[in-house]
Amino acid sequence: MINVSIIGPGLLGGSVALACRELSNVDNIALWARRAEAIDELRKLDIANIVSGELKEIIPNSDLIVFATPVGAVEKILCQLLPLAKKGAVITDLCSVKSSVVNLIDKVILDSDRSDLEFVGAHPMAGAEVSGFTNARAELFVDAVCAITPGDTSSKASEILVTQFWDSLGCKCVMIDPKVHDEMVAKVSHLPHLISSALAFNSLEDQNGAVQLAGPGIKGMTRISLGSPNMWAEILSENKQCVEKSLEQHINSMKDLLEILKNENHQELLDFLVEARENRLKSFPSD
Amino acid sequence: MINVSIIGPGLLGGSVALACRELSNVDNIALWARRAEAIDELRKLDIANIVSGELKEIIPNSDLIVFATPVGAVEKILCQLLPLAKKGAVITDLCSVKSSVVNLIDKVILDSDRSDLEFVGAHPMAGAEVSGFTNARAELFVDAVCAITPGDTSSKASEILVTQFWDSLGCKCVMIDPKVHDEMVAKVSHLPHLISSALAFNSLEDQNGAVQLAGPGIKGMTRISLGSPNMWAEILSENKQCVEKSLEQHINSMKDLLEILKNENHQELLDFLVEARENRLKSFPSD
Repeated sequence: MINVSIIGPGLLGGSVALACRELSNVDNIALWARRAEAIDELRKLDIANIVSGELKEIIPNSDLIVFATPVGAVEKILCQLLPLAKKGAVITDLCSVKSSVVNLIDKVILDSDRSDLEFVGAHPMAGAEVSGFTNARAELFVDAVCAITPGDTSSKASEILVTQFWDSLGCKCVMIDPKVHDEMVAKVSHLPHLISSALAFNSLEDQNGAVQLAGPGIKGMTRISLGSPNMWAEILSENKQCVEKSLEQHINSMKDLLEILKNENHQELLDFLVEARENRLKSFPSD
Repeated sequence: MINVSIIGPGLLGGSVALACRELSNVDNIALWARRAEAIDELRKLDIANIVSGELKEIIPNSDLIVFATPVGAVEKILCQLLPLAKKGAVITDLCSVKSSVVNLIDKVILDSDRSDLEFVGAHPMAGAEVSGFTNARAELFVDAVCAITPGDTSSKASEILVTQFWDSLGCKCVMIDPKVHDEMVAKVSHLPHLISSALAFNSLEDQNGAVQLAGPGIKGMTRISLGSPNMWAEILSENKQCVEKSLEQHINSMKDLLEILKNENHQELLDFLVEARENRLKSFPSD
């Protein structure tokens, strides 16, 4: 049996709390929130054994501490909770960009006198175009891929604990280097978000114009542009270098396509569409 | 009561036939198909009163002729059917690009001795990533926007007939100039298709790489890349000029975004994401 504390009660943190209630190996769930109104609301919902804005009421008995705040809030809270943590406690998180947060948390731990604490980063690829606790649900992580990104303070034992934790929430865990993770999510998540937003920005701007003919295709392609602008601006800035690289590749692809169209190179256009379709079929065979 | 003939039994033509069976004002449904095996199969399915590869068995009694072939097949079949058509028959189509097909059909009619025939173009924005008659369904057009694009051989009466026909299949009709239609679909349909394919091409190419972290976001954004490569290569070539213009705009947007990221202009990035999100919310309020 382990005690779990969750730092931050948003869509993801709230969903972790709800999912933990259903786990037989989780004894005590403690949830930290910043705003007094949020704390009041969360207490009424009986989502955790304790909900508090005081880290000293949340942290001391936790075997596993789950960071579920925006990445910008991690350092300050981490410094406050380190002295309170139980001996040998393990920390995980669910930030969308890993190199920076893994380096940060490892450095803070290694610079402190708490060499007994261990951090194993995680990024469950779940979420939605909605945010906030009111949209949280226990099933959010079911069948989601979760990247597990160990770093300098990880041990085999903490890697196993963290992997089993995300597995138990329904995730399919993949162990991966933080830098490689960031390159991969730039390609499959961050660039798509920029493109989705650019489409909404350019093609859906005139409600009396092209929008009249907007159908299910562009509707599906712009769905992720509904995500929180603040959250996404932070993610994109945090993964700046990898996103820039993917964006450059996309621009070059689009320039190549423009040339293909201008030159009326029908066979090359067809080959491109065929290969794209085959990649999609292989990547998502069921749908 | 009207008699309807449908030229081409693919996803769209097949769905028109199935939908017509449920219309009280349609008397006789005649379906033309090219391949002998397709004709055999369609006859077994009892989808139309007559299924044939002979235009003379399909056309003579039709009040409304619906072209549902690829655009490349229109001219040859049109020339064959004109001498067979009933006096005053109305022709419509469902090609995805309108200027070229409207000009073509109007020219063929005006150059013939059949000035009694009228053409009113249409583009029901329905379809799917699947094709072929086996995927046809009567409900395909329900709630789909349908552009009605009159041309030189349209009259008020034929515009009304064609609009009412597509309305009766469940479409929401919008009357629109063919050229404006083509600019609009370049923005909301053809560019999105190219982008979806480019994403699948670049981000989903390595099944042992980034694909491991591919989640519902990129899955949704690459769904339309599953569309028929042959059909899409034809559509993109057919609407070449408008697609090139939209593609150039997209490339410029992406270059602007790259500069914003490189310059770490957080506020501008945030403004872009906010405006994109607002466009999407306004365009599809329900979802």
